[in-house]
Amino acid sequence: MILRGKYVVCRVIDDDTSEIIKDGAVFQRDGQIVEIGLYMDLKARHDPDEEIGGPDFVVIPGMVNAHHHMRLTPFQLGSLDMPLEPGIFAEWSSREVDPYLDTLWCVLQMIESGITTVMHNQAMVRTPSDLDFYDSNARIVDAYEDSGMRVAFSLYNRDLHFFTSQDDETFLDSLPPFLGDRSRKGMRSRPITLDDHLSASEKLIVNKASNRTRIFISPHNVHWCSYEYLLAIKDFASRHSTGLHIHLQETAYQKMYGDEHWGKTPLAHLKDLGFLGPDLSCAHGVWLTDSDIDLLAETGTAICHNPSSNLRLNSGIAPINRLLERGVNVAIGIDEAGINDDNDILQEMRLTQKIHREPGVGVASPSSHRVLDMATRNGAKVTFFGDEAGTLEVGKRADMVLLDLERISEPYLDPDTNIVDSVVYRGRGSDAKTVIVDGEVLLRDGVHTKFDRAEIGARIRESLSGPLSPAAAGRAKFNADLKP
Amino acid sequence: MILRGKYVVCRVIDDDTSEIIKDGAVFQRDGQIVEIGLYMDLKARHDPDEEIGGPDFVVIPGMVNAHHHMRLTPFQLGSLDMPLEPGIFAEWSSREVDPYLDTLWCVLQMIESGITTVMHNQAMVRTPSDLDFYDSNARIVDAYEDSGMRVAFSLYNRDLHFFTSQDDETFLDSLPPFLGDRSRKGMRSRPITLDDHLSASEKLIVNKASNRTRIFISPHNVHWCSYEYLLAIKDFASRHSTGLHIHLQETAYQKMYGDEHWGKTPLAHLKDLGFLGPDLSCAHGVWLTDSDIDLLAETGTAICHNPSSNLRLNSGIAPINRLLERGVNVAIGIDEAGINDDNDILQEMRLTQKIHREPGVGVASPSSHRVLDMATRNGAKVTFFGDEAGTLEVGKRADMVLLDLERISEPYLDPDTNIVDSVVYRGRGSDAKTVIVDGEVLLRDGVHTKFDRAEIGARIRESLSGPLSPAAAGRAKFNADLKP
Repeated sequence: MILRGKYVVCRVIDDDTSEIIKDGAVFQRDGQIVEIGLYMDLKARHDPDEEIGGPDFVVIPGMVNAHHHMRLTPFQLGSLDMPLEPGIFAEWSSREVDPYLDTLWCVLQMIESGITTVMHNQAMVRTPSDLDFYDSNARIVDAYEDSGMRVAFSLYNRDLHFFTSQDDETFLDSLPPFLGDRSRKGMRSRPITLDDHLSASEKLIVNKASNRTRIFISPHNVHWCSYEYLLAIKDFASRHSTGLHIHLQETAYQKMYGDEHWGKTPLAHLKDLGFLGPDLSCAHGVWLTDSDIDLLAETGTAICHNPSSNLRLNSGIAPINRLLERGVNVAIGIDEAGINDDNDILQEMRLTQKIHREPGVGVASPSSHRVLDMATRNGAKVTFFGDEAGTLEVGKRADMVLLDLERISEPYLDPDTNIVDSVVYRGRGSDAKTVIVDGEVLLRDGVHTKFDRAEIGARIRESLSGPLSPAAAGRAKFNADLKP
Repeated sequence: MILRGKYVVCRVIDDDTSEIIKDGAVFQRDGQIVEIGLYMDLKARHDPDEEIGGPDFVVIPGMVNAHHHMRLTPFQLGSLDMPLEPGIFAEWSSREVDPYLDTLWCVLQMIESGITTVMHNQAMVRTPSDLDFYDSNARIVDAYEDSGMRVAFSLYNRDLHFFTSQDDETFLDSLPPFLGDRSRKGMRSRPITLDDHLSASEKLIVNKASNRTRIFISPHNVHWCSYEYLLAIKDFASRHSTGLHIHLQETAYQKMYGDEHWGKTPLAHLKDLGFLGPDLSCAHGVWLTDSDIDLLAETGTAICHNPSSNLRLNSGIAPINRLLERGVNVAIGIDEAGINDDNDILQEMRLTQKIHREPGVGVASPSSHRVLDMATRNGAKVTFFGDEAGTLEVGKRADMVLLDLERISEPYLDPDTNIVDSVVYRGRGSDAKTVIVDGEVLLRDGVHTKFDRAEIGARIRESLSGPLSPAAAGRAKFNADLKP
């Protein structure tokens, strides 16, 4: 197969430069990139079964959404944006959506904006429909497998502070007795243990790891896990040579928790436990200190940056300029919704570029090339697909996106404009016309090849058309009582 | 004509509430709103020539882009984003685009996202193609007239500090002699005077003011205008009972200029000159002090907020939460491009909502209702169309937009979600299917009624396909020499 573009963006070289082939093409066979060069040369040298693209397209590496949770967005399920801490309560009461369909819809949206790989971080939850943790979560992984998208999937869990960031008993004692009793009962009747976490993760590795699927493991957040929990998770990852993903210093309160409980930041606490390293990626990292940034740089620990989520949840603006200055690996994640509630990675890239424009003349902020690198190569690295994807290079797998260059440049674009600037300044999700993973076409001319989008949407609508289940209604009532 | 929606959003009442009619409709005759109510009732009572919309749409008031400059975006013309101060130099060297076509393209984009009124603030520039200032700028107003859109059009000019924010001679003396001489020559040979400014503005008022066109007047920015210039402009506005528009404290440097030259902020300086009041709207206002905010509130002076531009140009984030708290009239402007370089007001509204989410629990920031109010009623007020537009009310003119509710809610949206939240959280420019100004349909099912979009685009491309004109090439060379 030949993929042709007026420009082929192979990889980012530095802040101001990418390797770009004008009137270029990629020749791939069985999902492997065999040659990249001028279209004329490749066309003469190979006899492709199929040719996709043309002079009105730009070919770029498939993009990586480096921090995500499945679901229709909380907004779609009835929750306005709110800060993380009260937001967690609110999510408990949202409707159950079939996890397979729910994942699939999100996958379709992601593919539509050119995402080929995702870091999916999944809460372990007990719902009436869960047979066991393996079965319910395997269905999510099945959706990725069926879609053809690459995924680094991790289950997350915690063993401390189920309700807030303080000791549960202290919190429960502060509630009116009827609420405290009910909360204690709920918390104790069906705890999710470390063993549940490890055994479900192990079973996922055995049964589900594949060329396009990695199984990671994830402690939810530093202040929600005991030393023992963190060490057991780290040990699991080492034994299975797999990746670690964690939420870190997303809100100011989380940083304050570290000051109060350990006399140091959560990241410094992780450092002391031997938890840091190139296998670990941390979502958010909004409230990083300068010495945290040094720790990240020294240990090769990555940050998955979520600019939209950090705005929507009143978390703040992460110190990305400082992280890049120190050479920390920073990837970009949509974290469930993005600013437009629609999982558009190009919008998230553009927000990443603009939101770190600190005031004044001469302040460095991410260039278009840097942003593209964050959303491709850096993301591939944190999801452990760095050898296969993230750049277009001979020998790598064929994960790529064809964007509609005519739309991006309408009605006119200065001919000297670098194409990477054009994509990052003006590209929209809907400009992704063809999306390929491992040589397999998942989106062709804007149409999904493996699923009927309208039908999946209709099935989701149908499944949610009835009244709330008694269990969900009960949770909603409980939350309404608890909120004040 | 009946305009029908599953919801008709008539007007915003407060932070949490809008007047919304479910299964509603608007009946308009000759551009005037005659009745608003249940679709069933209106359908029974009136015999419309035409019915637009249906249960898959939401009807909202037409939106106002309250600060804008015509042009293909600077990015399209070859300039990467940069801070305002060096950016002004860069713009001098961009290609000339036919002002009529240029305006028209921008108008088409604005209409496509549901904008029905714009505050167009126009630089007075001498170009080889200018016959005189009236003729060249009347062509811009003609484009609005031909398009059917409402416009508050102002010419801006300045009489101080042509090159930077310091005395021109001091600056020019600091240049290498060949550059200084050339700059002096350019500056002196063709000055644009106060008289040019007033006479062109007066002629525009006489010839071009109409139901849909207001002619305002604009000193460029406080530090670029002498006392005498500001007073003459103010006097002109009073004599013609028209509006004043100015750039204000957009960058930290502008605030610093005030400290240095007047021992007070530029806004306080304007106050002392008697310049403030309900007829004045100020663009940007990023670097407002608390006492500036008091001055705005006390005098009824408005702020036109430009969140995308303020990010793109490294200006900063304006104190919108404080302005709203004090009851200052805040409207929203795209200022030439918006974050996506495409003039999408719904994207700008959403950015307005999200970017002021200061960190932590319990910090107030603009609700969806507040944001919609800023983009409709507040914008109508600053453009002097407050009596005609900005809300849907009996007796007002019919400026409204039908958004595709099915797309906004795909595949599912909790049925209890307030429609104003749905629009502000999830609406995209491309959801605007029908746009009506003064009862006239400008966009129908996403297609422009008065212009062929592709043809206008082709004419712009054609006009820019040749090499740079000698004059433009000379300016580019001069700027390249000057930049260091």
